[in-house]
Formats: sequence, C-alpha cells, structure tokens
Amino acid sequence: MLEADLLVVGAGIFGLATAYHYLRENPGKSVLIVDRMGDVGQGATAKSAAAFRANLFTSQTNRLLAGSSVDFFLHVQEKEGHDLGIMKVGYLVLRSREQFERVSEVAKMLEKMGAVRIYRREELMEKLKMNYDFSGDEEAELLNIMNVDYGIFGFKCGYMDADKLAYYYRDRIREMGGDFQFNTKVERVIVEPEVKLGIPREPRAWQKVKFSGIETNKGILKAKNLVLAAGGWSHLLLDPLGIDCISKPKKRQIFTVRPRTEEQRALLYNPNFNEEGVLPFTILPTEHYIRADKRDGTLWFALSDEMRPYSTDDEPEESFYYDNIYPIVVKYFPQLEGARVDNMWAGLYMINSVDHNPVVFRRANMVVATGDSGSGIMKGDAIGRISAALVQGKKEAELFGGEKIPTDRLEVVGRSLEPENFVF
Amino acid sequence: MLEADLLVVGAGIFGLATAYHYLRENPGKSVLIVDRMGDVGQGATAKSAAAFRANLFTSQTNRLLAGSSVDFFLHVQEKEGHDLGIMKVGYLVLRSREQFERVSEVAKMLEKMGAVRIYRREELMEKLKMNYDFSGDEEAELLNIMNVDYGIFGFKCGYMDADKLAYYYRDRIREMGGDFQFNTKVERVIVEPEVKLGIPREPRAWQKVKFSGIETNKGILKAKNLVLAAGGWSHLLLDPLGIDCISKPKKRQIFTVRPRTEEQRALLYNPNFNEEGVLPFTILPTEHYIRADKRDGTLWFALSDEMRPYSTDDEPEESFYYDNIYPIVVKYFPQLEGARVDNMWAGLYMINSVDHNPVVFRRANMVVATGDSGSGIMKGDAIGRISAALVQGKKEAELFGGEKIPTDRLEVVGRSLEPENFVF
Repeated sequence: MLEADLLVVGAGIFGLATAYHYLRENPGKSVLIVDRMGDVGQGATAKSAAAFRANLFTSQTNRLLAGSSVDFFLHVQEKEGHDLGIMKVGYLVLRSREQFERVSEVAKMLEKMGAVRIYRREELMEKLKMNYDFSGDEEAELLNIMNVDYGIFGFKCGYMDADKLAYYYRDRIREMGGDFQFNTKVERVIVEPEVKLGIPREPRAWQKVKFSGIETNKGILKAKNLVLAAGGWSHLLLDPLGIDCISKPKKRQIFTVRPRTEEQRALLYNPNFNEEGVLPFTILPTEHYIRADKRDGTLWFALSDEMRPYSTDDEPEESFYYDNIYPIVVKYFPQLEGARVDNMWAGLYMINSVDHNPVVFRRANMVVATGDSGSGIMKGDAIGRISAALVQGKKEAELFGGEKIPTDRLEVVGRSLEPENFVF
Repeated sequence: MLEADLLVVGAGIFGLATAYHYLRENPGKSVLIVDRMGDVGQGATAKSAAAFRANLFTSQTNRLLAGSSVDFFLHVQEKEGHDLGIMKVGYLVLRSREQFERVSEVAKMLEKMGAVRIYRREELMEKLKMNYDFSGDEEAELLNIMNVDYGIFGFKCGYMDADKLAYYYRDRIREMGGDFQFNTKVERVIVEPEVKLGIPREPRAWQKVKFSGIETNKGILKAKNLVLAAGGWSHLLLDPLGIDCISKPKKRQIFTVRPRTEEQRALLYNPNFNEEGVLPFTILPTEHYIRADKRDGTLWFALSDEMRPYSTDDEPEESFYYDNIYPIVVKYFPQLEGARVDNMWAGLYMINSVDHNPVVFRRANMVVATGDSGSGIMKGDAIGRISAALVQGKKEAELFGGEKIPTDRLEVVGRSLEPENFVF
C-alpha cells in the first residue's frame, strides 16, 4: 500500500488550507485529502454565511488570524485575479447602550486604528430605516428586545463565496500534485506502536505510538503524517484516542427571504453604507444576523442560539425561523411583516467555549485543526499555515503579510488566550 | 411539589462539600442531594486512591485549592476529632535527570518553602531498595523505562479514607437539616423560561431561562438553585443544554497486591520516609503510582494511561495490570516478581485537558462543579466553598485558612490558568 507523506481528513477550509500551504512549502511531497462528501467544502463550509471581519474582534489573536487570512483572500482576488466572490459590504454591529459600554474601549481603539466607525443612533437613523427605541413596548420587553443606541461599522468586513474559496485551494492543490479521494467516510484513526514487538494488544500503555493511517468505508489509507480537520465530527475520531479538542458541535441554521415589497427591497439594497449598495452584514442587539445577498437578491437570517444542544444533527427546522427569528427581526424591521422562508439550510459550528478561537495542536505525527467556533472560513488561511508548520515540526508559522505566530498558540494544554467579546 | 432552596446532583465530594458549605453559610435553607447510588461517595470518590498533596503542584491555583482543602481535612481530624483516615506518608516522585530538569525550578522553590525535600539517587539508594539504573538493559529500553536520578519528597502529602470524608460531610449536612435521596438516576435538567408565556415550544431562543429542576427515574424534583456535581457523567446532562464543561471521563483502574514474601513486605513497610512506617505514595518515572495501604496491608498499583478512550465505561480489566503495570514495576522493584492481582476496581477521572484544574461555573440559577481531573478529593473542600459561593452569587469565596479566591477563577469562558506540570 502506498503511504502518503501527508493525509488530510476533511476537505473543508482548514484541511484545504493546510494541504495547500504544506505543498507550497514542500513541493513534490505526496498529499492525499479524503472527505465523506463528493467535492471540497461540502460540509460546514458550504453551509456557512462565509462572513468575514478582519479587525472586528476584541482578542488580539483573533484579529491576527482573521486579519492575515482576509488579507490573503483579498490578495488572491485582487492580485492573483481569482474571483472569491468577496463583497466588502462591511459589518454593522448594532448595540444597546449597555452592550456598547462593555466593548467601548476596544471599539474606540479600533476606531483610532481606522478599522471601524462608531455611529450614534441619530446618525444611523438617517441611513437605516428600522425601529430604534422600544420604550413602553410590552411585547418587545417580553421578547427581550433591546434598543439600538450605537452601530459599530467594520470596514474590512463582509462576506465571500465559500465554494469559490474551496475551489481555489482545491485547484492549487491539484496543480501542485495533491490528490483527493471523495465519498470516503473515515471510521477511525489507526494507532500503532512506533516499535512493533509482535505481542498481543499493542500498543501497550508504555509504548510510544504513532498514528499510521485511517480506516475508511473504502479501506485503509496509510500516511507518514496525518492532519485531522474534520470540523464538527473531529471529536468523534478523537474521543476513542483519548485526545480532547475542547470543541463540540452545534447546529446553526440560515433562512433566506426573498423581498416581496418595495420596502423590503429597499432594506436589502441600502445604498448608504458600502459601494456594493446593499445592507451591511448586520448584527442586531439580540445577536440575530442579517446578510444581504446581492447575487441571489435575498436576505439571510440566522441566530446562534445559546441553548442549542451539542450534537452533529444538521437538519434545518423551519419552525426555528418562525419561533425565534421572525418575531424579533420584524420588531426591528416592521417592513419585513409577513416575510416567509424562501430557502434554508444548516451546518455545524465546532465551538470552543473557552475562547472561541480555533484549536490546533500536534500529538505524535498527527495534527488536529478544528474548533472553528463559527469563524473558521475567515481565519482559514492562517489556520492552514499554522497546521502545515506543525506537520513540519516548526515552532513558528509565517502568516500572510509576514507576521509570525508560535505554532503552540492554539494548543489545548496550558491554553491561555484572551477571551473574545465579539461573539455573534 | 416542594421546591428546595438548593438541589445538588451528585453525592461525591464536590456535591457534598458544596451542600455542607452552603448550609453552614445559610442555616435553615432546604437542601436536597440526589445520587444514583445507595449512599454518599459511591461513584468515583469510592474508587479513588484518595491521595493528597498539599503543595506538590507547579500551578499556584492548584496549590491554593489543594493546600487549603488538605488543611481543612487535617483540622477536621486533628482539631474536630473526626477520623478521616489521613495517613501522612508523603509523596515520593521519582524522576529521571531529564524529567527533573523540566520541574527543577519549581521543585527547588518548594524545597526553600520547606514543602519538599529533593533526594539525589545516592541518598535514595540508602532508603529504598529498587533498580535505579537501566543502562544497557535492552528490555528496559523497549519498555521505555527511565532511570531514577532524583526523588522529590512532599511532606504534607499522603492519602486518606475517601469513605470517611464522604461520611463526615454527609453527617454534618444531616445535622444541619440537609436531605438525601439515593438510588435516584437523573435523566435530564429541566429548562424553563423565566417568564412563562404559555406558547408552544417554550423556552424560545429569545427567552431568558432558568433551570427549574430535574427529571429522575423517580419523578420530577424542583429547586430554586441547582448544583450539578455529577463527576464523569456531568457532560451527559450538560450537552443537551448546550453547555460545555470542557471535561471528559477516562477510566482509571487500581490493582491491589498482597505481599507474599519478606522482600515484598519490606517494600510495603519501608520505615525510612515517614512515621507510619510504610512506603510513601510513590510515582515512578513512567508515571505508575504505588500506594502502600497500611490498614489492608496491600500495595496498590495504577497508571493513568494517556491513550485511554473517553468513555463512561468503568469496568476494571485484569489484563491492564499484566499488560501495562506489572512488566514495568517489576523492572523497578524485582522483589515484586510474580506479584498477582488480589483485588481491583475502576472509576472515572473527569479530565479537563486545558489545565487539569476543576471546572466550576454558574449559568442562570445552575452551578456546575466538575473536572476533578483525578485530584478532586484533595481539592474538594475548596471546590465546595467556591461552588457554594457561586450559588449565593458571590464574587469571592473564602477558603479554609482565610485566603480568598475569585469565584470565576475556574470558569470555562476566558479561562486562563497556569498549566500544571505535576500530572500523575
């Protein structure tokens, strides 16, 4: 059986970016990427809103990971000429006074850096038709709806086309000789002793081990190095090895609405914030987000519900829109009255509850890259560089733009990162 | 239905200590503790070696949690006159040169504090009959056995009787009016909206929630406040709520051996380290530990195997002793030649891989106390005080001896503790 230099489990953005940067740094090495779906980026990647925010994080590590990745994506689209569907529509984070005060220090620092603009309510009212004040509205109080007092507008923010990004990496990987094997479900990671003794029940607890390959529904695949980038399914492969990736999956659903009235179209095609002439990627004080999809001409709605059970269930439920999204957004935007679901889908956030940063670490000859926490695509290129550096045993990874980051920064053991306050 | 002021799930040390300190600070409140077993401390508590080390940690937080708890236990036994079976036999951590160098800075600091004594090999050889040097021993090399070059001896260390500690808390709780309901399996935590609207599918995602009680195999129990201290089963109750306790369970097994020869008895009844005249709680360079049980006249052996799958399986397997323990310890102690298993049992470590400290946090009216990571009993009293303070909404907890600790120190979100290097 052929033994690949590198075997990557998962053809999402983390796995693809890892393979791409590994091949870029090691031309001629054999790389095989396996995925249970029929093409790249068909798991959580395809289900994502593919939003990005380069600077709009309170954690410095998050800003570094997202900032350098977004710069790389912009470079690919603007300098290399590969369309990634990037729409710099901006982020508009709407906050109540109380919410704003909790992040005002970072927001003001970001404003000084030129990364955001802080709008007060009066300024917003001229640009965006919505309800700002719910004083005396008993229904709003029951719905735990907060006033809109501030808007934090992030400039180097927006959304991209996740498919196009996945195809970009796939095509570059193929150009460099990397292979894909699709429709292949990984059953388990194979553990072997470094030195085989030919005794029963190897590896024993006192033997040094290596991860020599994977067992799939299509047979065994062997490799010198393994990268596990299986998104919301990573823990299912790691638990039997006794390795904790401190991340668990939650279903996240997106519902699209096609505007039926002039007022709804005016909400989508808001000309006051960006050159694309659409509503920015907007986060309400209730943490519902709205994405104006210019290509489809639809409004996308979602909510990262706290109490969602941890599970790999990723079936969308239409009732979630009518129960938890519509009643809230129609209070903020009465022009959405009667807006019904046009399309819906669901994917998994692989959530690291400690600091909402990805989790990347090495054990023996295996590197794990997971814990996207819902911001995996926008950090994907940096994660790929860190993960590829770890495969090579490097202490530092160089991110796009030249900044270096220690490869153990996203390690589980002894983890100690700044918490992130901008979690949407 | 009666609604308790406090309902505690789990009558292990964390749950018991929480109930005890809550009642101590709130006399007259109604407290109910439920457990699936027939008495207190019958889960992981009963399966533990109940070892303790007051200062022998590299993490300052660990030293504070264990130090104050051990002081409390000593106070209970020596001042209050309740026998907890405490045996101050000391810890003897045997290290190779390379291992010692990784912790020498902390070890020397602890020696200056008077907490440990560092032995060099020559000094140890006069006190303990074992193999120290395996140069040229090919079998030892295959077994990844390391030389013994240093011994770090911790004074305020040893083991206690976990049953007696559990009974101590149980009896004090009963004296203060606390109730127990045993043989009760908790199926799920009940989530309700703070304000009930009488609509379908409550709580909706936009409603504030409370944890109003639990569903058990014997019916529903309601409470104003809930404490979840369910050890290695905690995540099974938390996952459906979408709450991550960043801890997972691993089976840990103890095998006892009854000495059959004079030399084996001499190993157990070593007079050179402590007033009890038994071998200290000894950790080999391979991380196997040996506990000389004076009362039973047996030697206990165990190994926290890294690659053990995460699972709630807690059945002991005799093969683990013959595969993974005996071949190693007999190399260090040839006098154990032929030593066979006399008794064995297994329990769960609830492991927090980030920093091996317990995990204690509050969500709405529920406090979670878990993540013992194998050192739960020795930190149990401090955890109970932190957890009881969190139930009362306090920002600080006062530990035994008067030192204060912020109640969010062991919180998941934004966690940032010193890593622990002494993990056995």
